[in-house]
Amino acid sequence: MRYELYYWTGIQGRGEFVRLALEDAGAAYLDVAREQGDAVMMPFLRGEKPGARPFAPPFLRAGRQVIAQTANILAFLAPRHGLVPAPAASQCHAMQLQLTIADMVAEVHDTHHPVAMEKYYEEQRPEARKRAASFRTQRIPKYLGYFEQILKQGDGRHILGRRHCYVDLSLFQLMAGLDYAFPQAMKSLRRRTPRLRALTERVAARPRIAAYLASPRRIPFNEAGIFRHYPELDRT
Amino acid sequence: MRYELYYWTGIQGRGEFVRLALEDAGAAYLDVAREQGDAVMMPFLRGEKPGARPFAPPFLRAGRQVIAQTANILAFLAPRHGLVPAPAASQCHAMQLQLTIADMVAEVHDTHHPVAMEKYYEEQRPEARKRAASFRTQRIPKYLGYFEQILKQGDGRHILGRRHCYVDLSLFQLMAGLDYAFPQAMKSLRRRTPRLRALTERVAARPRIAAYLASPRRIPFNEAGIFRHYPELDRT
Repeated sequence: MRYELYYWTGIQGRGEFVRLALEDAGAAYLDVAREQGDAVMMPFLRGEKPGARPFAPPFLRAGRQVIAQTANILAFLAPRHGLVPAPAASQCHAMQLQLTIADMVAEVHDTHHPVAMEKYYEEQRPEARKRAASFRTQRIPKYLGYFEQILKQGDGRHILGRRHCYVDLSLFQLMAGLDYAFPQAMKSLRRRTPRLRALTERVAARPRIAAYLASPRRIPFNEAGIFRHYPELDRT
Repeated sequence: MRYELYYWTGIQGRGEFVRLALEDAGAAYLDVAREQGDAVMMPFLRGEKPGARPFAPPFLRAGRQVIAQTANILAFLAPRHGLVPAPAASQCHAMQLQLTIADMVAEVHDTHHPVAMEKYYEEQRPEARKRAASFRTQRIPKYLGYFEQILKQGDGRHILGRRHCYVDLSLFQLMAGLDYAFPQAMKSLRRRTPRLRALTERVAARPRIAAYLASPRRIPFNEAGIFRHYPELDRT
């Protein structure tokens, strides 16, 4: 079966967490909006298509099933492609970690959109500076400290047990995005995140991920996405 | 087996979504921090206890398993207590809806903490006014419109198929919280949310939920929780 992934064109955004899982799995998928334009998603969002109605992209069509919410899509895909251990308790643990990543990603978005999601960054710059300062000094250390500690208490290499899983892929994306958006803040945390650094490099070196990252399918981070680099938000 | 629920004392917060499921199921549980104080949670948060390490409360102990992240806890409990249909596709759909509720709850929190989670509301009032205005005028109608449409396309009474499930309980809590925090904004939306209103009343009338809501275990909403009533944030 070929999956259909639906996500906004032009950005990595939350769709990228799903793409990385599909690519790592070597799964056949069509990146539908990139082929046909964003308008192709609207009938789904308006509830005009069969299957669960998504609130927002990304969503995945797998046969007759429509699945939305990034962590939920990953939890659906992972057991089908060996990207999570089979026991229910492991899948539950993976979801817990993935939802914590999702919480951090939402906070990343809020650094450039702290007061009005529907307005431009340029209309909320002073507030963005405040939010970004809090994010850099309080939240990045707290979240990354949490994941680093879990790696330390585990085998040091994998976030869940002793095997690669989809949460490792998402941690790679999280680190890549933070490095892009907050290079200074991330540089100052380097020595406190050795295992996350090693994990990020290891994921990037996985053959299918390396091939994907080198392909035109991996579009660069940019200032329309979730991870945006505004130097004034990275100042320490 | 008796569950152990861990959540901050003194507020409903995210723990309340779990409490409602436990109460509706008639499940035996100990609300541990309420009995023993918040300090009892710290060893879990510091990674000194066996089982998955939580990033934050709420978390649930079920036998040897520790489960964190509200939606994840609910997805764990629901099939054990008849609070979600058995098919995997239904559980996936329920999770999708629950995560959309979780997204909205995070946005509710940001209305009073738009620029710094670690500071007091009183330190971010001007920003909170902006964020709340956006939330009231853009986000509440968008989210509630979504859920109302799903009810309309379904049986009109249940958010998932034709049976009560844990997501209905969470929608009740969402509506109750929004009514408390933003009474004016919610009043102006009344005519556009008839099915959500009916669902909310129906959930409140379920015998175990009605008994819970009338008990001292249901502590009132207050200004330390997620749903806070600051009149200046509800002005239209």
